[in-house]
Amino acid sequence: MAAETTKSNPIRFGILGCAEIARKVARAIGLAPNAVIVAVGSRSLDKARRFIADNGLDADAVRAFGSYEAVLEDPGVDAVYVPLPTSLHLRWAVAAAERGKHLLLEKPTALCAAELDRILSACRSHGVQFMDSTMWMHHPRTAKMRELLSDSARFGQLKTIHSCFSFSGNPAFLQNDIRVKPDLDALGALGDVGWYCIRSILWAADYELPTKAIALQGTVKNEAGVILSCGSSLLWEDGKVATFQCSFMADLMMELIVGGTHGSLRLSDFVIPFEEEKAPFTFGSGLFFNELVTGWQSLPSTHIVTASLPQEALMVQEFSRLAGSIRDSTGKPDDKWPTISKKTQLVLDAVKASIDQGYRPVDIVG
Amino acid sequence: MAAETTKSNPIRFGILGCAEIARKVARAIGLAPNAVIVAVGSRSLDKARRFIADNGLDADAVRAFGSYEAVLEDPGVDAVYVPLPTSLHLRWAVAAAERGKHLLLEKPTALCAAELDRILSACRSHGVQFMDSTMWMHHPRTAKMRELLSDSARFGQLKTIHSCFSFSGNPAFLQNDIRVKPDLDALGALGDVGWYCIRSILWAADYELPTKAIALQGTVKNEAGVILSCGSSLLWEDGKVATFQCSFMADLMMELIVGGTHGSLRLSDFVIPFEEEKAPFTFGSGLFFNELVTGWQSLPSTHIVTASLPQEALMVQEFSRLAGSIRDSTGKPDDKWPTISKKTQLVLDAVKASIDQGYRPVDIVG
Repeated sequence: MAAETTKSNPIRFGILGCAEIARKVARAIGLAPNAVIVAVGSRSLDKARRFIADNGLDADAVRAFGSYEAVLEDPGVDAVYVPLPTSLHLRWAVAAAERGKHLLLEKPTALCAAELDRILSACRSHGVQFMDSTMWMHHPRTAKMRELLSDSARFGQLKTIHSCFSFSGNPAFLQNDIRVKPDLDALGALGDVGWYCIRSILWAADYELPTKAIALQGTVKNEAGVILSCGSSLLWEDGKVATFQCSFMADLMMELIVGGTHGSLRLSDFVIPFEEEKAPFTFGSGLFFNELVTGWQSLPSTHIVTASLPQEALMVQEFSRLAGSIRDSTGKPDDKWPTISKKTQLVLDAVKASIDQGYRPVDIVG
Repeated sequence: MAAETTKSNPIRFGILGCAEIARKVARAIGLAPNAVIVAVGSRSLDKARRFIADNGLDADAVRAFGSYEAVLEDPGVDAVYVPLPTSLHLRWAVAAAERGKHLLLEKPTALCAAELDRILSACRSHGVQFMDSTMWMHHPRTAKMRELLSDSARFGQLKTIHSCFSFSGNPAFLQNDIRVKPDLDALGALGDVGWYCIRSILWAADYELPTKAIALQGTVKNEAGVILSCGSSLLWEDGKVATFQCSFMADLMMELIVGGTHGSLRLSDFVIPFEEEKAPFTFGSGLFFNELVTGWQSLPSTHIVTASLPQEALMVQEFSRLAGSIRDSTGKPDDKWPTISKKTQLVLDAVKASIDQGYRPVDIVG
């Protein structure tokens, strides 16, 4: 990461907590042309130092702190990346905003939309940029797919969406990971993998909020009541229907299927592309059976989109661009990112409420 | 179809009705090595004659009849293929069985499971083979996929299924097709495209009946009350969950996604392969993120399965093999095919009941 020193006027990141995912984002900050890490805070100074060493950061350039507070008090920190357990987001995200630090927050952003509102309100009050760390939003594939879905001639009106994200947690994960602990990540699989499913559905619907969530019966919870597997249907007034299933108990799958009146789109790695350099999807338009209905007149086409940087580095780059324009110029926080975080959290709340209320339909009010 | 005359002791088919789909099955009978068409019946003799001419059948070898009854009375007919509107199935399927004709019946097999019971009972009483015309069951790809799903090491325990079959009916279809007419195919899209979704889910579950159906809100019906678009969740006691969506109002899609604890399978042309000669699917097993969660350790693999004959010809071949062993030897009707038809119809009934009862959960009792 020697290249760091050559970056011109980068956004200076502090990392709050040494979660596993912070390793990936630390690398992404290194890869982004407009960001550097200057501080790492942990409840243990030793752990912060070890994180710096283990991730190839320059110990002379990156300050290790034995508390999160110390990172926020560091005047050389412009922005923080917060990968703490969800139950700690409210406290530390608000504290960061109050110290004027731009905020890149891991998902789920909060335990509920009301908590997220308090975070977003603090960001607004203090003029800092907010963005949740949903990396696939920033892959050029996502923009390319959006372009096709927005093409009324080729895709038409959106009718149906299905999203599925699962991975198989090993026994240690299912026993000890923060994502299965009620006091740490109380939303379990819904907050972790389900977040991506909900986001993908909102994305496909161009962020039009569904009006109703009805969870799918069959939720699996652990002994502590944390969701390990669940799903939901989501409904819009105009008849669009989406379903999703998310789970810590099935093999790795990341499926997204989007159907419209004139076209359809599908991919099997929507959250994290199979490979960093190129990402596939297939798109069909105006497809129909052949004359004798023994095959297809034409086939969906496969598209491959290359990425100049990994999607997480593109995320850091975009976040830093926005933060930089506020720090260095007259830029204002971009409201796009908090808005879609809020919508995601609102849908998540509704799915959770439907599960908690015996799979009753729950209205989603924006 | 000159080859017909060289077939040794084939099953002699009569076709009841000249529906569009009968053209495809007539070709399939021609391609199957053990079947021939000997009679075509229509309410109009002229239409029967035209069907024979239009489909390249030998007018000297294939008898045209101006009624369905006449086909059933023809002692030279061993088996009938019945592509009539669903509302006519009960009458003509029972009549065929009573005349000792083996029965290849279009789907949906009946308007409800109780009607199908009467058809199956007639088949049993008269010792004739019953099979519904769900063609993809007979593609070698289906057997190959079944082998993988049954592999406890590579696929593990089934957890989740999603199936989607839609095509975009043009205005003429949505106005006039028998599949949108309450007196002809009262089950609409659920009976037509939904049949395949339900069958695919049962197939993936190795025909274990779900215990409950809860339709997805958002059913679209035409003015006559016939379903144009709908979906459902299906649940099993052990926590398996399936969802499906079927529609006459979205572009052509045939998606099937099956997830297990150790593997996953997906294909985008499960009902009718893109091409006749070869059919793809992808299968992943033991997939996981790479160490830094920036990509996948390994990827799902694509399998291509070649077919010696189109799947509909393989269906005719298998049906004729079973019928032949009864006609020519001591064979008994194979109960596998009526059993899976019955299960499909039971699930279909439950989904319909759930829709009709305001999306209430409906128990499925086998």
